[in-house]
Amino acid sequence: MENIEELQEKIQELIQEKKINELHSMLDEINSADFPSLFEELKQDEIVIIYRLLSKEKAAEVFAELDSDVQKKLINVFTDKELKTVVNELFMDDTVDLIEEMPASVVKRILKNIGVKDRKVINELLNYPEDSAGSIMTTEFVEFKENITIQEGFDIIKKTGIKKETVYHCYVLDKSRKLIGLVDIKEMLISDRDLKISEIMEENPISVLTSDDKEDVAKKFDKYNYMALPVVDTENRLVGIVTIDDAIDVIQEENTEDFEKMAAMIPNEETYFKTGVFTHAKNRILWLLVLMISSTFTGAIIEKYQSAFAAIPVLVAFIPMIMGTGGNCGSQSSTLVIRGLALDEIKISDIFKVIWKELRVAIVVGTILAIVTAIRIYFQYGSSYQGEILHLSMVVGLTLILTAILAKLVGGILPMIAKTLKLDPAIMAAPIISTIVDMCSILIFFKCAVMIMGI
Amino acid sequence: MENIEELQEKIQELIQEKKINELHSMLDEINSADFPSLFEELKQDEIVIIYRLLSKEKAAEVFAELDSDVQKKLINVFTDKELKTVVNELFMDDTVDLIEEMPASVVKRILKNIGVKDRKVINELLNYPEDSAGSIMTTEFVEFKENITIQEGFDIIKKTGIKKETVYHCYVLDKSRKLIGLVDIKEMLISDRDLKISEIMEENPISVLTSDDKEDVAKKFDKYNYMALPVVDTENRLVGIVTIDDAIDVIQEENTEDFEKMAAMIPNEETYFKTGVFTHAKNRILWLLVLMISSTFTGAIIEKYQSAFAAIPVLVAFIPMIMGTGGNCGSQSSTLVIRGLALDEIKISDIFKVIWKELRVAIVVGTILAIVTAIRIYFQYGSSYQGEILHLSMVVGLTLILTAILAKLVGGILPMIAKTLKLDPAIMAAPIISTIVDMCSILIFFKCAVMIMGI
Repeated sequence: MENIEELQEKIQELIQEKKINELHSMLDEINSADFPSLFEELKQDEIVIIYRLLSKEKAAEVFAELDSDVQKKLINVFTDKELKTVVNELFMDDTVDLIEEMPASVVKRILKNIGVKDRKVINELLNYPEDSAGSIMTTEFVEFKENITIQEGFDIIKKTGIKKETVYHCYVLDKSRKLIGLVDIKEMLISDRDLKISEIMEENPISVLTSDDKEDVAKKFDKYNYMALPVVDTENRLVGIVTIDDAIDVIQEENTEDFEKMAAMIPNEETYFKTGVFTHAKNRILWLLVLMISSTFTGAIIEKYQSAFAAIPVLVAFIPMIMGTGGNCGSQSSTLVIRGLALDEIKISDIFKVIWKELRVAIVVGTILAIVTAIRIYFQYGSSYQGEILHLSMVVGLTLILTAILAKLVGGILPMIAKTLKLDPAIMAAPIISTIVDMCSILIFFKCAVMIMGI
Repeated sequence: MENIEELQEKIQELIQEKKINELHSMLDEINSADFPSLFEELKQDEIVIIYRLLSKEKAAEVFAELDSDVQKKLINVFTDKELKTVVNELFMDDTVDLIEEMPASVVKRILKNIGVKDRKVINELLNYPEDSAGSIMTTEFVEFKENITIQEGFDIIKKTGIKKETVYHCYVLDKSRKLIGLVDIKEMLISDRDLKISEIMEENPISVLTSDDKEDVAKKFDKYNYMALPVVDTENRLVGIVTIDDAIDVIQEENTEDFEKMAAMIPNEETYFKTGVFTHAKNRILWLLVLMISSTFTGAIIEKYQSAFAAIPVLVAFIPMIMGTGGNCGSQSSTLVIRGLALDEIKISDIFKVIWKELRVAIVVGTILAIVTAIRIYFQYGSSYQGEILHLSMVVGLTLILTAILAKLVGGILPMIAKTLKLDPAIMAAPIISTIVDMCSILIFFKCAVMIMGI
């Protein structure tokens, strides 16, 4: 739906003219996922009118897509009967998300309107640790006994399918509810109807544990082409499924988290605009302080070499270039390694391969940087520092090569050490790497200067 | 499959003992997506033996998962008949990927073994621009005429489904092959078999154009919960579909690209280890050179204020802290804005909201940094710089506040300007922002010093 503004105008017109039938059929054409941005443009009472015109299933679909503040406003105008209809149409994972977002008073009203049996399931789902497979799964899946025929399978789907989050995969359970097989609906559709399910099912399908990290679950979706993954308990009993649309959300969340960590921030689940100024400040200040204080060590090194730049003041002018280049060299390497680790393209055991590769890249890159800088120094300072020009070029060039090597090794190794220590490699990104490399590169610079220029 | 090593040993044992039947049934149990890592551990002749034991469908599935160098090696040992079987079992998008990766001689052999009709389709697919929806779509979808019944739909799926990449969504076409509807297989399964397809189809489904950017296609998957999206030409005729597993690949690729751009690298499609040392160096050197040369402007500013740090040498010691903090402040903001733009959470029209938010966050953050630094200066230099201690604290504190404001505004605004100019916002990340902010913050620092300390 490209044109939300047009749609909004049309709807407001229809509401004012009370053309309910026309409005009704128009709403039917709009995809559930487009309602949130449409609702952003409408007034509260218009939203309520529209919402009440939606069919039962569509209303639940739309409700699940809405932002929590809009959900809250709607619940506040709902009668108990309306609330009951909505929560009973929602899939379990969406109900759980809703309960987690709502204030206590609203949660009480929601739970009151849910049947006893569902309430029990919801309580169990709420108890899974945050970020676990259990916390993102839903319990509405199609289950078969192994000895039924495909035709009987179709009958079960016809009877119960409407309440299931997906029918693309169906799961085969034994008598103790242990997961023994997976049937893809395509396999059922192209096979003879009187075959047994057990003859076409995929045995011992890939599954995840309720306690597995949701990031690992998302990675499995990335690797295996399933539309849903079964979630089992420690006894291999099927307790839920995670569907691929939720996995995509997890992938995007994890990527955002990595971006934020790599820019020295504490990750935040809310969007940019939904996060208040003080929360933004809180998420950013910790690392800024840590890095600011660490950078005083670099300052201390510079202070120690006061006599060097008192003798040759131009040395100070190279500090930004050396620090900047070191930081950039290091963050290039750390970014590649962090991303490689996140995508499982680099394993911890590859550490020596990484070192060897980074070393060679650093030598190539460092040499080019050194040559370009030597040429620049010749043209920029050739006339004023005639006697020292060769020495100055040597100092800066050598510093650049050594800094490139150091930065690329530190940038390549630190994320892998973090991973070995079960820390998130993403924290070993540009900001920390720069701070460490700054210190070392400035030290290298002044040591070279003292040695080569004999200050 | 958790234990590739165990599996490998078992397989090598079975090959040596020539227990072909046992090997056969063991291979059947292994998921296609696990073969690439298994093959990494095996010798070339073992790979060929195993590959020849796979069923026709599985062989094609496994082949599509393999790295291009393994694919190439296999093709080189294939007879023409074997090659023909594989390429005719592959889905069109996988065939196209294969052709794009292989050297000319292999491509010639592949094309020779593909039927004339398929060859025409492949040529069309190869002609879509890189990164377009057309370049990632496949042509194997289920299509219905609108006047058939659901039962007739099932008959079509049973007859043709095995050759289709997905049967979860089926598409309804009119006589001129224009896309008029989408039927979800769930809807078909829960409805009466004698209803017309047109009664249960979703009219005017979300679709993409062949020329649409694949990143936008991936975003649609993120927003709408479809398992596949139909791809139409400018006349709304259905020409292909993109399935969700390919969309996940695109999402991950785009994220990797952003990570690489944000760390001042030219993005690279290959994995870390598959990229040679010189390609790595080539991808990294351009931005390093640009940023290194830019940072000489900061150096020039420092040089200009030689007399200031000749008078008060300790000023130089604050340079790393100010540059580092400015860079970190800026990259925090630019990262949040770049990510917000990528996820459509921030729009170009939000620029003043971003400025207003960043300004307030910067004031909060800058003030805290200034206070902490003032305290540190008091304790560190209190004894040696007694008379100047208040002035020094004021200079550094004021610089930090102004730098935070500047950095956060530059970091927030530049990615949005890039987007307005149709550039990728990701290039306006930490490295560029740092270089710009470095220059300004050092200028602010010395201006404050000259003003307040009266140098």
